[in-house]
Amino acid sequence: MIKFVRNLTKLIKEKDPAIHSNWEVILYPFFKVYIYYVIAHFLYLHKFYFLARYLSEKAKRKTGIEIHPGARIGKNFFIDHGVGVVIGETALIGDNVVIYHGVTLGGTGKDKGKRHPTIKDNVVIGAGTIILGNITIGEKAIIGAGAIVLKDVPDNSVVVGVYK
Amino acid sequence: MIKFVRNLTKLIKEKDPAIHSNWEVILYPFFKVYIYYVIAHFLYLHKFYFLARYLSEKAKRKTGIEIHPGARIGKNFFIDHGVGVVIGETALIGDNVVIYHGVTLGGTGKDKGKRHPTIKDNVVIGAGTIILGNITIGEKAIIGAGAIVLKDVPDNSVVVGVYK
Amino acid sequence: MIKFVRNLTKLIKEKDPAIHSNWEVILYPFFKVYIYYVIAHFLYLHKFYFLARYLSEKAKRKTGIEIHPGARIGKNFFIDHGVGVVIGETALIGDNVVIYHGVTLGGTGKDKGKRHPTIKDNVVIGAGTIILGNITIGEKAIIGAGAIVLKDVPDNSVVVGVYK
Repeated sequence: MIKFVRNLTKLIKEKDPAIHSNWEVILYPFFKVYIYYVIAHFLYLHKFYFLARYLSEKAKRKTGIEIHPGARIGKNFFIDHGVGVVIGETALIGDNVVIYHGVTLGGTGKDKGKRHPTIKDNVVIGAGTIILGNITIGEKAIIGAGAIVLKDVPDNSVVVGVYK
Repeated sequence: MIKFVRNLTKLIKEKDPAIHSNWEVILYPFFKVYIYYVIAHFLYLHKFYFLARYLSEKAKRKTGIEIHPGARIGKNFFIDHGVGVVIGETALIGDNVVIYHGVTLGGTGKDKGKRHPTIKDNVVIGAGTIILGNITIGEKAIIGAGAIVLKDVPDNSVVVGVYK
Repeated sequence: MIKFVRNLTKLIKEKDPAIHSNWEVILYPFFKVYIYYVIAHFLYLHKFYFLARYLSEKAKRKTGIEIHPGARIGKNFFIDHGVGVVIGETALIGDNVVIYHGVTLGGTGKDKGKRHPTIKDNVVIGAGTIILGNITIGEKAIIGAGAIVLKDVPDNSVVVGVYK
């Protein structure tokens, strides 16, 4: 647990130039929501769906960030600010991904089963971006703020505006 | 009241594939905000404006969804996720309308009286969409995620991007 | 203090046609967040960074509006609705500026020092707009809802869509 908090602290300090001291990390909404997510995801995997959803809703009320307990998230994930973030049940997020506030990893309502995006390692997703459907965002891709992404994005690419 | 809750439960189960049990509906922000709205709208119609606004602000703090108590809403309305939704005082919403998070039904600041949109029956409005002014969205129209809509939309049409 | 509240009350009444009585202003999220900001900014200037951030985070939990305590804001500033607003540490806002919900005054991650926008006097910024980087929005500029702004905007101009 201590190691977990220490890593999270280190990560937040690296990502945000506005931070002034170690203690400030406990004020970060991501710090809070991520701890809730870890517990909710554990409960979800053991089929305690109600309790898992309860925790994720509670975390959302506190932070404005909605991570469905079913989402699978890699190492060193970071969400900055975070109000309005929605991450769907079958979203799959790789390592070292950074997401800003207002980002949606959602469904189109057309798919069944895996119906939310897959985000590969080292992707950065700008504020207000909406990514819908069972599509894949390739490694090291940069998705500009406010983009709408409806199809696969290749590795190492930069996407702005509507991409469909 | 029981019938009301039962209908709301049925509706939410129909709309969201991520739900695992009946009980989960009480965790839905829309479940909460809609109950607040019904009471606030009643108070508003009887000119208890302060109390009505108080309830709608309280609901917004809990859910991130802001429905002005003056807005008029039809049957089977549903908001998914909901953080960032703003529905203005003179907005008029038909039956079977579905709205995602981040949607604004707002004013342009130029109109007086009826200054917010009219949404006809069976419309679906994607995440992050902004609809401004006293315009009409026609029946069964689908408004894509992130659209900006500033003029009337005909029945049965699909709108993406900036529409003005 | 009384004068401060009176001015804020007058301002909110001027800006929002949906208000029905003086008392309603205490329900406005901006009323709340602005009082928090004034205290947090004072603490920030005296280098009580932790306490300042604590207050701004608390205000954000209550209102959905995130104003970094370091931001500098002129007279008669107003935020309507406000969920999803993010104002960065080095943002500089002039007098009589109006901002709607979902607006970001953020950084690109490339600059150091002053890395957030400067907003001149009498600017209006529509809902969902994202303005990134150490750029300047000129006097009386109107930024349309949902715009993405990545370079300087001249005085008196109207900007819509992606501007880079």
